[in-house]
Amino acid sequence: MIDKNAPIGVFDSGVGGLTVAREIMRQIPNERIVYFGDTARVPYGSKSKETVTRFSRQIVRFLQTQKVKAIVIACNTASAYALEEIEAELDIPIIGVVKPGAKVAAETTANGKIGVIATEGTIGSHIYSRYIKEINPEAEVIGKACPLFVPLVEEGLWQDPVTDEIAKRYLTELIDIGIDTLILGCTHYPLIRSTVGKTMGDGVTLVNPAYETARELKELLTKKGLLNEEEAKLGDNRYCFYVSDAAEKFKRFANSIIKYGILSAKVINIEEY
Amino acid sequence: MIDKNAPIGVFDSGVGGLTVAREIMRQIPNERIVYFGDTARVPYGSKSKETVTRFSRQIVRFLQTQKVKAIVIACNTASAYALEEIEAELDIPIIGVVKPGAKVAAETTANGKIGVIATEGTIGSHIYSRYIKEINPEAEVIGKACPLFVPLVEEGLWQDPVTDEIAKRYLTELIDIGIDTLILGCTHYPLIRSTVGKTMGDGVTLVNPAYETARELKELLTKKGLLNEEEAKLGDNRYCFYVSDAAEKFKRFANSIIKYGILSAKVINIEEY
Repeated sequence: MIDKNAPIGVFDSGVGGLTVAREIMRQIPNERIVYFGDTARVPYGSKSKETVTRFSRQIVRFLQTQKVKAIVIACNTASAYALEEIEAELDIPIIGVVKPGAKVAAETTANGKIGVIATEGTIGSHIYSRYIKEINPEAEVIGKACPLFVPLVEEGLWQDPVTDEIAKRYLTELIDIGIDTLILGCTHYPLIRSTVGKTMGDGVTLVNPAYETARELKELLTKKGLLNEEEAKLGDNRYCFYVSDAAEKFKRFANSIIKYGILSAKVINIEEY
Repeated sequence: MIDKNAPIGVFDSGVGGLTVAREIMRQIPNERIVYFGDTARVPYGSKSKETVTRFSRQIVRFLQTQKVKAIVIACNTASAYALEEIEAELDIPIIGVVKPGAKVAAETTANGKIGVIATEGTIGSHIYSRYIKEINPEAEVIGKACPLFVPLVEEGLWQDPVTDEIAKRYLTELIDIGIDTLILGCTHYPLIRSTVGKTMGDGVTLVNPAYETARELKELLTKKGLLNEEEAKLGDNRYCFYVSDAAEKFKRFANSIIKYGILSAKVINIEEY
């Protein structure tokens, strides 16, 4: 018997997954969340499958010590590399951010041309393409790695001429190909959604996997009878944050994304799990 | 008795330390080198003292299994945070990149105003300032963190209008203060030396700690009677490279920096040390 009142475990390589946590808070506000950001080993996007899978397994073991009822891999790279292996080893539900985004993109496109922007790891894995083609085998999926977007977001240049210029360089080939749907395939990217949208123009629909993942999580919990029915009360501390390093910096960034006031983030040594 | 023919251990969070290894290869070509790049946990610049020190200790333990005769911490952040503690625990010589750069800057400045550009970690540690003031107590040291320089270098934008623009933003306050000496306090920065030099103008002397560190290493080995007197032979494999992840990517980047042809980089699990 899984406890409905147990928290949902959400993890990412760092702060990016907070855009997913934020959507879960919005869409299913009764749920408690234990968030882990692997700030000691961030970023994952340029690392190998073996390394990202090893890191993800350690985090899942940590989250299990927190008695979570379900896990969300709120990181595209870890979802791409580690979800399938870990899913086979677990007895609680686990979802990643890739499949929900892929599904909506496959259903949204009119001309069958879908772009994906993400880290090198996610693009190199071809995971979005695989999931999209399972639903829409005729679709053409064009991936583009955008390694500078994450540091630009973390430097706070969400709306800035430099970010505009870098976006133009990365996105021009997707515009030239004539995609009509673009997946924001890295959890940092919703924060520069307006820059990406402006660069791509009105004809292109942006898909935000963070939003779709929260929606899918709600459906999954409902289906399994795991939705938390206990209503959130004011002053209730429903959200716990853990990181593997530099808690103060995490808190600052988190408070710029999430409006609930993050009071504390606890540092743990993730290599011990 | 330390074996003169033993290699020198050189380590960094990733590829940046190769600019230091390159200087050692140039200035003391008879020396063998074992290089370790912590590509699974790169970057260090935004991580805490505790974490960087823990990582550095693991790497030193690995290098000791390679029977090195001396160690160079070819990373400013790790030099700033971990050198003093590790030095006290070791029985072979170890040097970092900070002290040699600080020394030359302290001796070079005419107006006493010295700038330091580096990662957040190095700047926050105030380590350059401390070392400079030991030599030149009157000096004024102005630190500036430049978090986007590393990703720009790793994206290959060594000479690019975007890098020019970011350099202008980061460096304007140093120009306004009227510094006459600027330390390139991160091992990636020598690769954008020309952009930084152009932005600062002719009146500012750039100090490259990589160069000064190789010089100091040579002096130290000479003083201790540890210089390798066995001449390097053509085809001799004097340089070994180890990384904690993504060896292929490391090799590509390394070959763009070092002209000796890096044949292989072996992946090890550094968390086991």
